[in-house]
Amino acid sequence: MSKTITPRNEDYSQWYIDIVRKAGLADYSAVKGCMVIKPLGFGIWENMRDQLDRMFKETGHVNAYFPLFIPKSFLSKEAAHVEGFAKECAVVTHYRLKNADDGSGVVVDPDAKLEEELIVRPTSETIIWNTYKDWIQSYRDLPLLINQWANVVRWEMRTRLFLRTAEFLWQEGHTAHETREEAIQEAERMLDVYARFAEEYMAMPVVRGRKTANERFAGAEDTYCIEALMQDGWALQAGTSHFLGQNFAKAFDVQFSTRNNTLEYVWATSWGVSTRLMGALVMVHSDDQGLVIPPRLAPTQVVIVPIPKPLPELTEKANQIAAALRSQGIRIIIDDDEQNRPGFKFAEYEKVGVPVRLGLGARDLANGTIEVARRDTGEKSNVPIDSLSTHIPALLEEIQSNLYNRALEYRESHTTSVNTWDEFTHVLETKGGFISAHWDGTTETELKIKELTKATIRCIPLDGDTEPGTCILTGKPSERRVLFARAY
Amino acid sequence: MSKTITPRNEDYSQWYIDIVRKAGLADYSAVKGCMVIKPLGFGIWENMRDQLDRMFKETGHVNAYFPLFIPKSFLSKEAAHVEGFAKECAVVTHYRLKNADDGSGVVVDPDAKLEEELIVRPTSETIIWNTYKDWIQSYRDLPLLINQWANVVRWEMRTRLFLRTAEFLWQEGHTAHETREEAIQEAERMLDVYARFAEEYMAMPVVRGRKTANERFAGAEDTYCIEALMQDGWALQAGTSHFLGQNFAKAFDVQFSTRNNTLEYVWATSWGVSTRLMGALVMVHSDDQGLVIPPRLAPTQVVIVPIPKPLPELTEKANQIAAALRSQGIRIIIDDDEQNRPGFKFAEYEKVGVPVRLGLGARDLANGTIEVARRDTGEKSNVPIDSLSTHIPALLEEIQSNLYNRALEYRESHTTSVNTWDEFTHVLETKGGFISAHWDGTTETELKIKELTKATIRCIPLDGDTEPGTCILTGKPSERRVLFARAY
Repeated sequence: MSKTITPRNEDYSQWYIDIVRKAGLADYSAVKGCMVIKPLGFGIWENMRDQLDRMFKETGHVNAYFPLFIPKSFLSKEAAHVEGFAKECAVVTHYRLKNADDGSGVVVDPDAKLEEELIVRPTSETIIWNTYKDWIQSYRDLPLLINQWANVVRWEMRTRLFLRTAEFLWQEGHTAHETREEAIQEAERMLDVYARFAEEYMAMPVVRGRKTANERFAGAEDTYCIEALMQDGWALQAGTSHFLGQNFAKAFDVQFSTRNNTLEYVWATSWGVSTRLMGALVMVHSDDQGLVIPPRLAPTQVVIVPIPKPLPELTEKANQIAAALRSQGIRIIIDDDEQNRPGFKFAEYEKVGVPVRLGLGARDLANGTIEVARRDTGEKSNVPIDSLSTHIPALLEEIQSNLYNRALEYRESHTTSVNTWDEFTHVLETKGGFISAHWDGTTETELKIKELTKATIRCIPLDGDTEPGTCILTGKPSERRVLFARAY
Repeated sequence: MSKTITPRNEDYSQWYIDIVRKAGLADYSAVKGCMVIKPLGFGIWENMRDQLDRMFKETGHVNAYFPLFIPKSFLSKEAAHVEGFAKECAVVTHYRLKNADDGSGVVVDPDAKLEEELIVRPTSETIIWNTYKDWIQSYRDLPLLINQWANVVRWEMRTRLFLRTAEFLWQEGHTAHETREEAIQEAERMLDVYARFAEEYMAMPVVRGRKTANERFAGAEDTYCIEALMQDGWALQAGTSHFLGQNFAKAFDVQFSTRNNTLEYVWATSWGVSTRLMGALVMVHSDDQGLVIPPRLAPTQVVIVPIPKPLPELTEKANQIAAALRSQGIRIIIDDDEQNRPGFKFAEYEKVGVPVRLGLGARDLANGTIEVARRDTGEKSNVPIDSLSTHIPALLEEIQSNLYNRALEYRESHTTSVNTWDEFTHVLETKGGFISAHWDGTTETELKIKELTKATIRCIPLDGDTEPGTCILTGKPSERRVLFARAY
């Protein structure tokens, strides 16, 4: 594997794959469509997971764990759901192997065929609502606010690391409520959690919106989403939260006795984000030198490199600095490997996206200063060692904000309002990004636009422009603008 | 489901299942052999996982994630491994469903048959060592110290919640080393981590030992284990750590260039603990009233119950107390539900194992005291509210120690040294527990003893009695005593 990273303007797709592989986030595996998440990638995912988990718990949710396998018949119980999920999936048909007669290895034992095939979960609404039937009898059992961290499998023919893989990691919240209003509030609350997470931790601005009927989750009455813009002007759906109405309660016969002693079907939501967020994180911030990670999610926030090599007094000082910063909660390492030169190390830490690099030389030591280099801007400055305890935490926050502001500026300069079909196609071809335009509200027009341009309606923004107009394709009346983009 | 828990002395197996189900730890699912881990059970598992994860990281390990699926041919590559693991497992043969012609639901699409079947991982040595081949070229890439938290599947016909389920959660460490000695040290280090975790967090004394050749992990040169004793006198293997020699490196051709510029196969270990620990936790500490959880692992450590009901001044004081204890890091809740009476609540919190219950009545408030009830002993005392900030942390530590000491006392009084076959069978039938006895060192004798008595050699204790003697069954010379028991 070549060491250099393909520049973005040369081949954006290859740039993305280069970053993911060469920075050590993930790699292909021997199993078609499945990836290996490498230690650095998993370290970032752990930080995402832990923060999301805190936010879920702060909003009253608890974790549980449901089976990996779903009986095939369960998938058929909710009509829309089966259309959306029952098709491309991993099917377990047997439960035993045996030695091949010719000694060549193992073969599937034909005597060990399952009576009913099991599907590796593509999502867990069915098995979970089948369980909730036993857990919910009365309004006193509600709300039920449960989340699961799990792996899921959706067979994919064309895969791309993190963005589309057969197996991926995610969390799926599944909640049950007394009323329609409470369930809708929950779906909106969790969308807000996702949006705050994306903006405050991933430093990734997102548009909060609702999906069109055509783009809704299979089995949902309403799908809320957050949409982000990548550096190539393509959009990426970063999280969804679904109001499921009573669809799954009816499919699995989950009724409860109400406060008025009547029987009613339970109202539901589900919501999820996945390792796809890792792909978004890479594509929003990274550059031609390698990965850029927002400090709040970086497994290592600061690295100290002694220059020109780890002399005893430099290493001793580096250890003192590291211990002091670590006691402030900063994730810091020292690279005192003697086999690689500083220049090599600098390039490596740029590639793997450590937000701040401290270079400590003998002259610095004499002056009581240290060289501080920022990964986001490449800027270097000399800072008194005595001031690091205030300088470094402030710098990490500044980098966090700068990354957010940079991404926001990109998105704002790549969000265009258009009123005609010509403008729409022109902007799409020349500039990309989000295009705010009028649409007549029909699935037919939506699909026609997709067919003609590969652009899809990313969302109906929650805080978008609601002035009426006319559809860019059909000229029919439109109630409000929606956001189009080509999307991952 | 009846509310009462079957007493231990009436039916120990049923008692166990009652605790697991009625305290809300786990339950059966619609998928044969798979369990649902309920919020309380998962909350305890999260605490276990987080602590183990800290200990793994403190010993230099990082997490990663490898595919759920293993190509069938991989299982055949290590000869002993295939015998141990390739048999009872979930086999994915197809990747698509389609609508049934008769409209009855979905059926497996025969056109979507995989060229090579995929096995849902029963353990990941094969897929991981196939990956390590790409990651390891030189001694500079070593040691590689990686852990994975994952779900695994081993088809089981007879299942028992947590103790034996088709799908379970676990962690599996997979490390690669330059030398035999370093790999053995690693296997021993991780055994020590497991033992410390079991004793310091689960309050469960364990015997550290090595397995006999017959009981070794499939593909290991040496298997270290920790063994615990349950309240019915049966043993439970609580964790294993394997020295794998060069077996997997040879099977997957993983060589490295040494410091002397020669090529050598890499030395390996693997080690794991699973949700089986949840079963051990229940069986070591719980009683006929319900679950008993050591404070360090309890999701809720303290509950405050206003008596006789949540009057405003009681709730206000309870909130003050809770806020103060919470700021000390104590996990505390207030039960101010008005629909259930204190007696009902007390029984509930006993059932779910909250270590400390505080009862706050109007007279207490006037006196400035509060009733403190311990779950482990049932003791109650009145304590000045002002002293809670010192009393409660100390009490939680005392409960933690008391549970450990109680379990240790049980184990010590149920560990018997015997010298003859008659003594051996007599102790096994009347008292159970660990039996320390001489064995001639052959697998033949080991299997014969198992066949005659259902007792197995749990381990050759690391710090056991090494005085020579004669085998209890054959009378042949024995180098040292080993530990027998009937086991889960």
